[in-house]
Amino acid sequence: MVRTRTWILSNRPKEIPTYSGPDPTFTLIERDLQPLQQGQILVKVLFFSNDPAQRTWIKSSDDLPSDRHYVKPVDLNTPMQSRGLCEVIESRSDALPKGTTILARVDWNEYVVLDAKDATALSPLPNGLSFSHYLGVFGTTGLTAYYGIVVVGEAKASHRLVVSGAAGATGSMVVQIAKRIIGVGEVIGIAGSDDKCKFVVETLGADKCLNYRSPSFFDDLTKATEGCVDIYFDNVGGTILDAMLGRLKQNGVVVACGSISGYNSDHGTLLTNYFQVISMRLQIRGFIAADYVHKAQKVTEIFIRALEQGKLTINDELEHVVPTTFEDVPKTWLKLFDGSNTGKLVTKIIP
Amino acid sequence: MVRTRTWILSNRPKEIPTYSGPDPTFTLIERDLQPLQQGQILVKVLFFSNDPAQRTWIKSSDDLPSDRHYVKPVDLNTPMQSRGLCEVIESRSDALPKGTTILARVDWNEYVVLDAKDATALSPLPNGLSFSHYLGVFGTTGLTAYYGIVVVGEAKASHRLVVSGAAGATGSMVVQIAKRIIGVGEVIGIAGSDDKCKFVVETLGADKCLNYRSPSFFDDLTKATEGCVDIYFDNVGGTILDAMLGRLKQNGVVVACGSISGYNSDHGTLLTNYFQVISMRLQIRGFIAADYVHKAQKVTEIFIRALEQGKLTINDELEHVVPTTFEDVPKTWLKLFDGSNTGKLVTKIIP
Repeated sequence: MVRTRTWILSNRPKEIPTYSGPDPTFTLIERDLQPLQQGQILVKVLFFSNDPAQRTWIKSSDDLPSDRHYVKPVDLNTPMQSRGLCEVIESRSDALPKGTTILARVDWNEYVVLDAKDATALSPLPNGLSFSHYLGVFGTTGLTAYYGIVVVGEAKASHRLVVSGAAGATGSMVVQIAKRIIGVGEVIGIAGSDDKCKFVVETLGADKCLNYRSPSFFDDLTKATEGCVDIYFDNVGGTILDAMLGRLKQNGVVVACGSISGYNSDHGTLLTNYFQVISMRLQIRGFIAADYVHKAQKVTEIFIRALEQGKLTINDELEHVVPTTFEDVPKTWLKLFDGSNTGKLVTKIIP
Repeated sequence: MVRTRTWILSNRPKEIPTYSGPDPTFTLIERDLQPLQQGQILVKVLFFSNDPAQRTWIKSSDDLPSDRHYVKPVDLNTPMQSRGLCEVIESRSDALPKGTTILARVDWNEYVVLDAKDATALSPLPNGLSFSHYLGVFGTTGLTAYYGIVVVGEAKASHRLVVSGAAGATGSMVVQIAKRIIGVGEVIGIAGSDDKCKFVVETLGADKCLNYRSPSFFDDLTKATEGCVDIYFDNVGGTILDAMLGRLKQNGVVVACGSISGYNSDHGTLLTNYFQVISMRLQIRGFIAADYVHKAQKVTEIFIRALEQGKLTINDELEHVVPTTFEDVPKTWLKLFDGSNTGKLVTKIIP
């Protein structure tokens, strides 16, 4: 029997999740794992993916009924979950022998027992890139950005595009794909600090980037989008989405990817410009990358070709890898919500 | 020179418009019309159309900037406007001789001078239907309903559809077109009284209709939409739109036609279920019928054929014609917003 520490969901948070104090969202326990059965593997977690969507998996069913999630939510008093990059340390599956590096949805454990069919074996990435990029660019994040721009937004060279969360995991790929692969005419980022904006323009190639924490942000946005834009790739929802409804051209499209501004509250999204959806014939198009996963291999090939041609910057700057003891797994995850993160936030477990 | 009474927009209303008391929205004045020039006509107004969208034409530019309307808004201290059905009483246009019945956007006047090119001559309707139906079924209202269901919503026989404002001008056509022309599998109306619901089911042919003023409405809606629906044809916005985001199937569509619940306020639209746009891959598709006006003739022919085949009920029950003195034009218009109206609200000017 293998013993593991586990962060369980002990309470559903109303606002910012906690991992200590009264009624903590997450509680650290220890437990024994079941012995491996035929077709199963025992893995050790090397990296956890940190994704804003995880916050929606732990909402109360009053906020989001269990059948309205796009993946199974986390039940109370069961382990919190994440995508994880893991090493197989014991195997009863011929497909995934000991030593294989795999990607799977896993519990917030040190060690996890998985059915081999629920895990994907990973090959090394080109240019000596860390395996951890499978949690970002070469995983759901890159796929989300590509699918959102190309299929959902139908972006073209003649378009002007605004993307929020432009320094974040998805946004940083949106900027690059739009500008450097699709050749979108103008790409305007929105991010949470001047440093992030510098990164979005200088490293990622956006034409402009606006700091939404600036007191003049809404005026800046109006000026930067004079004449209005065709596409808004929305990672944040809330007041920025509302403002953008007023800055889209007739027949403009909101690519609705995320609404992180609302994940830590149950106050809802107030749209003072909602009528412009009608008057300007806008479309708000929700999507999730899981619907596009059959194209993942093709998209990865596009990224690798772009990388070879020098069109994509895929380096460690696109990742924010935080070495973390297992006790601090929730602490690192919470960096998603405090504005301190640039690029894909990855938890590297300190052995 | 012809003298006319005119209702002008004297103040932009924050909430329910007024036509007396302090700072009235509308003020009655008298003025002289300019003499006719070549190519112009002088018309006498017989009927005014009353449309919720008119409320958005008089919003302050803080609420809706002038370039974000779909028709030119009404300037302060100029006549309020409406679509009007009129008789030509003097003509300097060969195309529209005296005695012609025309449709045009007109001022809230007794008499109006128009460029002939801005007016459409009308032929009598079949079955002895009143000309006034050109303001409803055989005008923008019917076109809006048809375009919204067929083109925007892509409704199919296999679908389940909910429509709000189901007893109103557009909604009453949506129910009939969906059920009797397209053959949508299930059509559920939402209306503001038990009497209206009876009309929606018994006269228009909806499968069910829910009274949104009932204290159990939201529970009723959940029950009536068990298993969820494919299309929500939204005429009202607000809390019903919010609830419907929780009742659409994956890939469901909101046909965003109107948001009357927000027209008399500037509080905005609060969507507590906005995240479900993403998690359920919903699309909110704004549209206006003006984009489809090149198909108006074809749609009218479809309606006339359906009428001949007994598939459409187009009778005076679909109109709510209110004989009105010119002094009461705003009073009749306000019936749009007090829940007392069924079908297309038409003002018939008492000579």
